[in-house]
Amino acid sequence: MSQRKIRLGMIGGGHSSFIGIVHRIASYIGEQYTLVGGAFDTDYNRAIDFAKQLELDPSRTYPNIDAFVAGETALPADQRIEAVVVVTPNFLHYPMAKQLIQAGFHVICEKPVTNTAAEAVELEELVAKHKVVFALTHTYTGYPMVRQMKSMIADGVIGDVQKVDAQYYQGWINPVIHDKEKRKSVWRLDPEKAGQSCCMGDIGVHAFQMVEYTTGLKTKKVLSDLNTLYPDNALDVDGTALLRFENNVRGIVRASQIATAEENNFTVAVYGTKGSLKWEQENPNYLYFLQENEPMQVMKPGHVYASELAKQSTKMAPGHPEGIFDSMANLYTGAAKAIRGEAYLEGSYPTIRDGVRGMKFIEAVLASAKAGNTWTEIVD
Amino acid sequence: MSQRKIRLGMIGGGHSSFIGIVHRIASYIGEQYTLVGGAFDTDYNRAIDFAKQLELDPSRTYPNIDAFVAGETALPADQRIEAVVVVTPNFLHYPMAKQLIQAGFHVICEKPVTNTAAEAVELEELVAKHKVVFALTHTYTGYPMVRQMKSMIADGVIGDVQKVDAQYYQGWINPVIHDKEKRKSVWRLDPEKAGQSCCMGDIGVHAFQMVEYTTGLKTKKVLSDLNTLYPDNALDVDGTALLRFENNVRGIVRASQIATAEENNFTVAVYGTKGSLKWEQENPNYLYFLQENEPMQVMKPGHVYASELAKQSTKMAPGHPEGIFDSMANLYTGAAKAIRGEAYLEGSYPTIRDGVRGMKFIEAVLASAKAGNTWTEIVD
Amino acid sequence: MSQRKIRLGMIGGGHSSFIGIVHRIASYIGEQYTLVGGAFDTDYNRAIDFAKQLELDPSRTYPNIDAFVAGETALPADQRIEAVVVVTPNFLHYPMAKQLIQAGFHVICEKPVTNTAAEAVELEELVAKHKVVFALTHTYTGYPMVRQMKSMIADGVIGDVQKVDAQYYQGWINPVIHDKEKRKSVWRLDPEKAGQSCCMGDIGVHAFQMVEYTTGLKTKKVLSDLNTLYPDNALDVDGTALLRFENNVRGIVRASQIATAEENNFTVAVYGTKGSLKWEQENPNYLYFLQENEPMQVMKPGHVYASELAKQSTKMAPGHPEGIFDSMANLYTGAAKAIRGEAYLEGSYPTIRDGVRGMKFIEAVLASAKAGNTWTEIVD
Amino acid sequence: MSQRKIRLGMIGGGHSSFIGIVHRIASYIGEQYTLVGGAFDTDYNRAIDFAKQLELDPSRTYPNIDAFVAGETALPADQRIEAVVVVTPNFLHYPMAKQLIQAGFHVICEKPVTNTAAEAVELEELVAKHKVVFALTHTYTGYPMVRQMKSMIADGVIGDVQKVDAQYYQGWINPVIHDKEKRKSVWRLDPEKAGQSCCMGDIGVHAFQMVEYTTGLKTKKVLSDLNTLYPDNALDVDGTALLRFENNVRGIVRASQIATAEENNFTVAVYGTKGSLKWEQENPNYLYFLQENEPMQVMKPGHVYASELAKQSTKMAPGHPEGIFDSMANLYTGAAKAIRGEAYLEGSYPTIRDGVRGMKFIEAVLASAKAGNTWTEIVD
Repeated sequence: MSQRKIRLGMIGGGHSSFIGIVHRIASYIGEQYTLVGGAFDTDYNRAIDFAKQLELDPSRTYPNIDAFVAGETALPADQRIEAVVVVTPNFLHYPMAKQLIQAGFHVICEKPVTNTAAEAVELEELVAKHKVVFALTHTYTGYPMVRQMKSMIADGVIGDVQKVDAQYYQGWINPVIHDKEKRKSVWRLDPEKAGQSCCMGDIGVHAFQMVEYTTGLKTKKVLSDLNTLYPDNALDVDGTALLRFENNVRGIVRASQIATAEENNFTVAVYGTKGSLKWEQENPNYLYFLQENEPMQVMKPGHVYASELAKQSTKMAPGHPEGIFDSMANLYTGAAKAIRGEAYLEGSYPTIRDGVRGMKFIEAVLASAKAGNTWTEIVD
Repeated sequence: MSQRKIRLGMIGGGHSSFIGIVHRIASYIGEQYTLVGGAFDTDYNRAIDFAKQLELDPSRTYPNIDAFVAGETALPADQRIEAVVVVTPNFLHYPMAKQLIQAGFHVICEKPVTNTAAEAVELEELVAKHKVVFALTHTYTGYPMVRQMKSMIADGVIGDVQKVDAQYYQGWINPVIHDKEKRKSVWRLDPEKAGQSCCMGDIGVHAFQMVEYTTGLKTKKVLSDLNTLYPDNALDVDGTALLRFENNVRGIVRASQIATAEENNFTVAVYGTKGSLKWEQENPNYLYFLQENEPMQVMKPGHVYASELAKQSTKMAPGHPEGIFDSMANLYTGAAKAIRGEAYLEGSYPTIRDGVRGMKFIEAVLASAKAGNTWTEIVD
Repeated sequence: MSQRKIRLGMIGGGHSSFIGIVHRIASYIGEQYTLVGGAFDTDYNRAIDFAKQLELDPSRTYPNIDAFVAGETALPADQRIEAVVVVTPNFLHYPMAKQLIQAGFHVICEKPVTNTAAEAVELEELVAKHKVVFALTHTYTGYPMVRQMKSMIADGVIGDVQKVDAQYYQGWINPVIHDKEKRKSVWRLDPEKAGQSCCMGDIGVHAFQMVEYTTGLKTKKVLSDLNTLYPDNALDVDGTALLRFENNVRGIVRASQIATAEENNFTVAVYGTKGSLKWEQENPNYLYFLQENEPMQVMKPGHVYASELAKQSTKMAPGHPEGIFDSMANLYTGAAKAIRGEAYLEGSYPTIRDGVRGMKFIEAVLASAKAGNTWTEIVD
Repeated sequence: MSQRKIRLGMIGGGHSSFIGIVHRIASYIGEQYTLVGGAFDTDYNRAIDFAKQLELDPSRTYPNIDAFVAGETALPADQRIEAVVVVTPNFLHYPMAKQLIQAGFHVICEKPVTNTAAEAVELEELVAKHKVVFALTHTYTGYPMVRQMKSMIADGVIGDVQKVDAQYYQGWINPVIHDKEKRKSVWRLDPEKAGQSCCMGDIGVHAFQMVEYTTGLKTKKVLSDLNTLYPDNALDVDGTALLRFENNVRGIVRASQIATAEENNFTVAVYGTKGSLKWEQENPNYLYFLQENEPMQVMKPGHVYASELAKQSTKMAPGHPEGIFDSMANLYTGAAKAIRGEAYLEGSYPTIRDGVRGMKFIEAVLASAKAGNTWTEIVD
């Protein structure tokens, strides 16, 4: 840990941002980044005020991304911001990420990566071309026990995967969806702002990414059933996708925003020929390992049986729970190592690859539902 | 409870039977039945030996069902066995139940009710014609908290149902399915003995019945994805069925016998416009009630807030867990009241109606899978 | 299981009895007993009515215990009731058990065994002299996972026990204890009817017995702190007892009836040099096995890893929860084997020894509290 | 949040420190502090190297606390470090805190505050005299649901407290305590380094502070039973303390380091006349609220029912678990407000008062055990 900190910038994330603070905390926890400046707000005065509060150098606060890119690239390499967090509204992720990659910045981008799979593929090509690091904050893959799960499956501990079941159930849209006026006022339900999908795009894709992350399997095709609940509501608020992997392996992704009063009931269960693993986001420090004729094992972080990847993702001794910020901090730490050019530890942060896969999943799910719930290929 | 006990007979259920003892215990617990005789075994000597052990009158032990029917119907009405438990191998349920109904006996039948939906419909007509009670032991609907759930939904406590998700995951077939020889030796995988379906017919149908039992909704159509895992294996060992109810309400039934090392992980979650209810078979004494902006409530049996149906299904004070035998005993008690001609308390035991619905579900699921995972109607 | 059933009688347990049905169900479940007769009620007409309802021979229903003993002993040995369940009010347990033992009956007795330790010792001597079986229904020791715990500790799986912590928390007395009139109307708080202690005598003793049952350790002395909550209330409603075993091993028994809204939150944790075991009555089908550097193991009934004692205490396949009646049925089955003269399987039912230990514990706890919370020996 | 950040220093906490990073993360999360300098290490070169890694100004890194105090007090008030974190070995907390208070610095001090109660009292007087903020990091009181519990009890939601039961069970000392050589090598078991007590001083005091924090009650006297396990081991590794509060209310504090394989199984249960509240450290985002005749309520952070204190202690939306660092960050944020002179929100961070109470508890517990387990007063 004797290496210097990475100079970090942020686009969006100012006073009124909910997600900005989440990313800043994640960047602080690992002590790998120094926040130097950014374009925090569309209102420049408010941006300056915000920078003051964080005691940042005002000269590194810019009125917009163009000024940011111009200003920073004009600085000497050893002062210039190296990595940029994109926490603007969803529809801006793609153009901003593109601009930043092309200007040579490493990018840490909030989800969704883009509006379309085609855009994600374009970013992937640009990332390769400009040789930058691109981290997509699929936050949940930073939890130590998710990483333990990935490692155990990769090591063959549960044998061949034969079934996967992932659920992401929330209830937050229930109080608005049943009122005609209210449901028109929610940006998540507005295709202009939210993109092609509400439920699948926002949380179903987390479940999908978790499935591919933990199992290492690639989804070949999907069959989906989406529910918009009301005819005048354009976007899905609930859905199920049947998944088919290689070798006829089956999976299910279930997502809902009308599972009334659920918070973030996100779970994943992977069943293999030799054993099974189950994990729940709301109790993230437990991993359940099932084997025939054996008592179920309850694995926790910080123990000698932790995989290398899980070990690097835990700071505390066993029995002191870490939470969602620590999970995201693990992504930042993983990206920091990549930015410094260290050898990539597989699974240490989600890359643009995850972004491409996720967008293709969403598009396939939407196509399947539109076509009357038929199987739809995901071509990579 | 001052009424006389019902004279009970049993077909099958002798020495080597696993399920016979389960039914007998259920019949004892409520103190509503006296086991009088039966045709317990295909080996008559063994049947007699078994009857001796239970200290039954040997003259009421018969070599087969024909002798049973002949012998009992020859007795005066006040001595004659009134109700008969059918716990023979699956393929015999239909002919035996039919014979018993036609002879005027009330029938308590193990699941599956028949091999085909057509047979179940036939039984339904016979039950009506002969005015007998027919109880189908969908055991789990006897749990007090399942009944509480049904009552609360019927009372509108969670508003309109907008999503249902039921799971029944087991792993017991995993150790045999991967070995070519072993999988040929399992009767559950043999269409001759097990009928049209393994996983959906055995446990998926429990999940389906639970969904219709708790919500009162009728499933209009299904789209299913079944997995036999190996080409030389004829019957499904894993499957998912998407459900469509009236008013566009969606549901999912997920069942598996290759969810390695799962035991009877049977759960049901019902999401309504005003709240949600969740229940798990392996912790059956808890019912989880979720409402927006309120702490989740954990309901338990024996409290003042219990519905009438739940109240009648509990014997102990709160905090002393009752289990699977008590659940089944509640079905026996419900049927006993019906046999005595008391007013039927809705939901107190599953009837031939549940049997018909279940068989139609199984056939629709199989048809959907065969047709390439397309929507298939359930016509009632 | 090919042996004949044991002829069972019952003293008390009629129409108005809560506990009678519990014992009857326990006797039915194992199919080891036939209820033949008894003295069910102090009101003979009601007793006869009750016998009719159970379809018992009225000639075997007696107006009182004297008539019961006289009537049954007059019968030929092969018709005579062999074992008698005592479920009368607490203060009658001792005289009735004594009378039955002296008349040569096996006795299955509700808790508390007696009012004083001296009486329990007397019964112990009579049991030995008359060579009868005496089973005391410390119901919880019938749970399979409690028995598994006992077996594992006996087998040295957790090494030497170094600490034990048992809790039995209820809240049922809270709604009455704070009202001067109400608390005078509760028989449990009346020394005439309830004996020397309320909380410790009723539930603390369960925790104590569980500690000695699972660990096999003998308590040498206790130091207790009891709370009657109000000066005009004579009996304890809450208390803690520090325990000292051989070799300086420490234990704690915590009991309360003012742990508001707790139901039967009865837990036991045993910590050994090599591992630990924890169990909770309200989730009785789980046993938690902790070892350093290993994931916690969650053991369940019905698996290949079950001890012989646990195996004999389970009827169902894994994943179908059994409950409190099944636990008590296991005591009845254990006693049945003893009554038939089979070799005693250690731990299969609590004997008069448990009764003696329990009463000595209660008296030592009361003496310690009275003496100002000082150490008080338990002399065996 | 528009106020400037507080300039923070740190004594100890360098490269080899486990606890230093915990405090730094806590200081980062709330964005209320800027780490400026300190005396991080007894080896000055290593301290400088450490400062470089954190990209701190080397001129603010000092070789020891004397230099730190001299250097910083020589700076103008608007550059000077304002608050200092003390994370040195335990025996240095007292002299260093004293020196810092006397020099006018606010102090954030690791636990234990001092070696003796007398020293804690002395610090309390100095804090008052020098008008500085003194925060003692009883980390667990920063969890939102602990704070919710405190607020609810203060608001009378559970009526009058009638029983309290707190447990802190660990197993970490088990692997070393049974080996004569190993147990001599552990600093926690060395009175020179660890002070008067091992188990009670390290974790029992957390349970005690939690009891007084959540209930607002003051402990009047204690009776304790301590276990050193081996005669050649001077300090307790296990113990139970009976507590007596005002109005005869009873409590129990149970602590152990030989509860084999327990991690940080720290729980607190408070039973009141109208309801009860229970919390567990390893699942800190749940608070269990029990009431007679009502379903148990499971409260979680971030909801509308959160108390003001709980609300201020949560950053995320419901369902995204926060952990131990977030809990400690809440203490830092609470102290920051005090340092800035904002009105003190009761319970927002533990003060020197908690330190004094804790040391008096430890001394009373030790005195009680030494005197043969007798009641010992805690005089304030």
